[in-house]
Order: sequence, then C-alpha cells, then structure tokens
Amino acid sequence: MDFPLLAWSARLHENNFMLLDERQLPDRVEYIRINDYIDAAAAIRNMNTRAFGQLLTVLYAMVLTIRMADDLLAELKRAAEVLENSRPTFGFGKYTQMVVSWAEEATGAGDEDAADKTISRIHDFLDMIRNMRLRRAQIAAGLLEDGDVILTHCNTSGELLLAARECRSQGKKLRFYATETRPYFQGRLTAWEMSSDGFEVTLIPDNRAASIIGDGVCTKVITGSDRVARNGDIVNKTGTYQLALCAREAGIPFFAYVQQPGDDETGDDIAIEYRSGDEVTAYKGTKVYPDGLNVYYPAFDLTPARLINMLITFEAALTPAEFAGSIV
Amino acid sequence: MDFPLLAWSARLHENNFMLLDERQLPDRVEYIRINDYIDAAAAIRNMNTRAFGQLLTVLYAMVLTIRMADDLLAELKRAAEVLENSRPTFGFGKYTQMVVSWAEEATGAGDEDAADKTISRIHDFLDMIRNMRLRRAQIAAGLLEDGDVILTHCNTSGELLLAARECRSQGKKLRFYATETRPYFQGRLTAWEMSSDGFEVTLIPDNRAASIIGDGVCTKVITGSDRVARNGDIVNKTGTYQLALCAREAGIPFFAYVQQPGDDETGDDIAIEYRSGDEVTAYKGTKVYPDGLNVYYPAFDLTPARLINMLITFEAALTPAEFAGSIV
Repeated sequence: MDFPLLAWSARLHENNFMLLDERQLPDRVEYIRINDYIDAAAAIRNMNTRAFGQLLTVLYAMVLTIRMADDLLAELKRAAEVLENSRPTFGFGKYTQMVVSWAEEATGAGDEDAADKTISRIHDFLDMIRNMRLRRAQIAAGLLEDGDVILTHCNTSGELLLAARECRSQGKKLRFYATETRPYFQGRLTAWEMSSDGFEVTLIPDNRAASIIGDGVCTKVITGSDRVARNGDIVNKTGTYQLALCAREAGIPFFAYVQQPGDDETGDDIAIEYRSGDEVTAYKGTKVYPDGLNVYYPAFDLTPARLINMLITFEAALTPAEFAGSIV
Repeated sequence: MDFPLLAWSARLHENNFMLLDERQLPDRVEYIRINDYIDAAAAIRNMNTRAFGQLLTVLYAMVLTIRMADDLLAELKRAAEVLENSRPTFGFGKYTQMVVSWAEEATGAGDEDAADKTISRIHDFLDMIRNMRLRRAQIAAGLLEDGDVILTHCNTSGELLLAARECRSQGKKLRFYATETRPYFQGRLTAWEMSSDGFEVTLIPDNRAASIIGDGVCTKVITGSDRVARNGDIVNKTGTYQLALCAREAGIPFFAYVQQPGDDETGDDIAIEYRSGDEVTAYKGTKVYPDGLNVYYPAFDLTPARLINMLITFEAALTPAEFAGSIV
C-alpha cells in the first residue's frame, strides 16, 4: 500500500534531506532542504512539519549529524539536546536518547563502523514504524463500519487516510467531517488528503463540533495524539478534549491513535506547549486582530482517559483500562 | 451611562441612516449609508451588522420607508417582507409586523399624520428597548461577583460591556476570555470593545473553550442569544452549545441574555440559517482553503434549556423553568 504524502513527509537520500513544508499545503506541494539538526529543530519549532513528520525530522537529522560528525558521540548529544528542546509536548527525548544509546553501544564495542551501524539501526527502526503504522491502519479499520460518518480533528499524518483506504478495500463506505483546527487550519490538510483520495469530506468550524455530534450526523470521532500517558490520558492538538466531551454527551465513541507511552503516569505529567499569540492573530500575513491583544494559545490539551472509548495502539484497539493494564 | 458603540450601532437623523460596518472593526470605525430597506436587507444579509444592530437596522429602515412612502401600508408591507427574509434566525417578523400593525391602526383611524404617528411609535419602542437594555445590564451585573473570570462567545452587542461597567462601578473586578468565533472572528469585536474600555480580556481559539473551562480558569460563561423558545432553549451563534456543555461538565454556570420569546415552543421550532461555505474558506480576501471543498456552516446552534443556569431577561434573571413558567 502506498504511503500517503502526509504519512511520510520527508525524504533522505545520501545527505539530501528534503522535508515537506506542510504550511504551504494544499496550495503547493513544496519541500524544504534541511542541512543539519539546527535546520531540523527550526522546521519543527516553526511548524513546517508536525505530528509524525516531527519524528521523521528528528531521526533524519540525527542521520545527517552522524554522517557529518568528527566526534560522533559529542555531536550526536549536542544534536539530541537541540532537537529535544525544539518543541516540548511530543517528547522527542525518548527517540534521541535511543539513538545516542545505539551510538554509545557501537562505539563502546570499538566498532570501526559505529556511525554506519547507528544509521542502519535508525533506518531499521523507521522501517519497523512504517510497518507498525500500516498494521495500525488495519486495526483502526476494524473499528469502523460501513456507513460510518467520522469526525476528526487536526491531521493524523495520513493514518486516518490509510484506515479509510483499508475500509474501502473491504467495501465499507465512510464519510468524513474535519474541523478547521484553528489557528493553523490543519483541517485543510485532512480535507485535502481525504478529498484527493476520493473520500467525501466536509469542513466545519471548530465551534460546530458539539452540534454536528449532537445532531446525530457523526457516528464516531477519531483523532491522533501527540502523547499518551500510562493511564490512557492523551495529549493532542487543542480542541481534542471538547470533541471527546461532545462525543460522550451524544453517546458516540471517541477513538485516538496512540504511540507507546513514556514514563508519564497521567496526562498531567505531560508538558503542554504554549505558543505565541501571533500565530492566532494573523494568517498568511493577513492580520485578523488588532495589535496588543492578549491571546492564550496552548497548542495541546489533555483528554482524560474516562472520555476515551478505544486507544488504537500499534498492536490492538484497547480500552484505556486495558491499555493501562498492558503497560509493563 | 454612555451606550457602547456596538450597543447602538446605527444613527438616524432625518433621512440620513448611517450603519456601523462591523466587518471593518476594529481596524476602522466606518459607517455605511443605508438609503432604503433594500440596502438595509443587504447589510443584514452580508453581516455588515449583526445581533442587536439588525433590529435597529430593520426599524430604522421602516422609518425611512414610511418617510418615503406614497402608499404607506403597501410600501411598509413590501419592506416588511424583504426585511423579514434577509436572515431567517433572529425572527425580524415579530418587529416588522408590529410596525405594520401600528401603521394600520393609524391609517384605519383616519389619522392624517398616520406616518408621523407610526414613526413616533417606532422611536418610543426603541427608547424603551434602550432602557430595558440598561436595566438588563444591571440584572446581569447582579449575577457577577468580584474576581469572576468570564468566558464569552461572539459579541453581545455591547451588553456584556454594559454589565462590566456596572460591576466596575460597584467595585467588582472582572476578567474576560473571548472565543475567536469562527468564521467571522466576532471575538475580535468583544476583545476590542472590552479592552478599549480598560477591561482585561484574552482571546482564545474556539477549540480551547473546553480546556479553559475545565482547567478552572473561568468561573462563568455568558453569551447572548438570537432567539429564545418558550421552554428556555436558546439559539445563538454556532459554538454556544459546546460552551454550555463544557460549563456543565466543569460545574460552572452558563448564562444567556434573552429577549421575549415568540411562538416557538422549543428550540427545534426555530429556523437555523445555513450560510455559504465561502465565509469559512477565505478571510479578507486571503484564501484559507482550496476551492471545491465541502463546507458545513450553519450560523447558529441550539443550546437546550437543561444546560442553561440563568436566562437574563429584561426583567430578571430566571432559571429556564421560571422563564417557561413566566410566559403568558
């Protein structure tokens, strides 16, 4: 199965690392060149990429760093530190530390090709992730039924599209509603990728979600998540919490894609990123608001496990209780 | 007490009817000239004015019509029909029919100055509304406490500002959060009028409402309403319903300003206006989305009485049950 553009939004050939600039979509499909981990951290912070694209960017930047390093470990650690601090919520540290530990293993064992071995492990890891995501699309498709009308928020980095394709191949017909997802209007990514692939998708303002759910138009809500805690709380793009609340009120299920949790026991342990109000007050150079206004824009919110019906992991769809019980 | 600009957004001197163009705010305080009821209906439909400004526009347009009419009743009825159909949800018919009935009374009684008498009754009615709104600001202020942090949605045509001023004069300190209110960003009106008057106000994306309420930041939610049904259901700017849901979930009160109900028994009897998706996909000429996208944009939603703590009428703050019981 082909990977959707947003599901694998960067390309690395030799030292040529090109990153899809999601801010230009869908007007232009444009790639920007990433020369080193500094460029990579800036692209993450400036939201040229987001969600899964960030992980790809971090790992490819580490490959570049390894290739260019004179002192492998020292430079990899510097890169890790910069990348980890580019944005707080996703939790890149788990991945950068994993790569650093691989490099330490290889150099500690005295391997002459420690750099190549580390790069190879990164690529193996990404191949595994790729397969796990395809598997997760099948798990998600298993939760969906013919005739479902699905409301989603922000953009799941192509995973909802993968699940929709899987459903289509099984003869299940689905329709989609996408929230705008202010302030970055990431709903435009979802509307674009779903409609380009032939799925019926309708955009709604974020403030319409309760009504569209309450009116019985939607049968399920599915979102991604940037982080999951060990108790099943998720942290995702701001607005996710109220979708889950509305779904609960209307008695329809709320599902979220999740990764492996880190050490966070509950969602309260996960740092929420506060971004500049300037990202709310202007769009593409057009000022929406006057200067000097206070704006409160945390980029993420916490959806408590009690509002979540199923967490879609790489292995199975689990209730939050099953998920919490499965954590070793 | 001075009326805020947005609380009385039109001026009529002789035949010179100037309407505040709310779409230009806060960049420019600009008035457009309304020459007849056709201009007035267009200004309402195109949202140059909104909320209470619409009622003012309808009534001033009827004054103009009366002044220019050769056949008073025939032209007043034509104007009434056009104005009633400019936008469906607010329910202008109650007011246009009231004016037509005044004109019928005056002409039926054979008054030579039937036109002047009708105009005079319109002005008396507006004076009464003005006083009722000042009274309502005091009622609203009575619901607010020192230290309250109030979340509001869209713009209450200056009424929340009137209540805030009343609180200030009583020594109660308040702070405000305003939702953006997509797609017209009417939160900019609220942020502008409150901050211009010296109140602390912070803007949030619509999708942040649940978290800001759930996090305990806000102590009360107050909105206007375009219509209220006899059972206390309200119809207001899309997004109101989810604020009420979030307030209920967090255990903080939700208040709404209401007018006299018409014949609608419940909110389901009130027509919801569906506006063009073009209003969502572009802002001030900047396209946010690609062409050809399905967009679903009902301008209003229904908040059921069970989620409302108090309806702030012109006479008192009433629970929905008290309100329903008070309807004769």
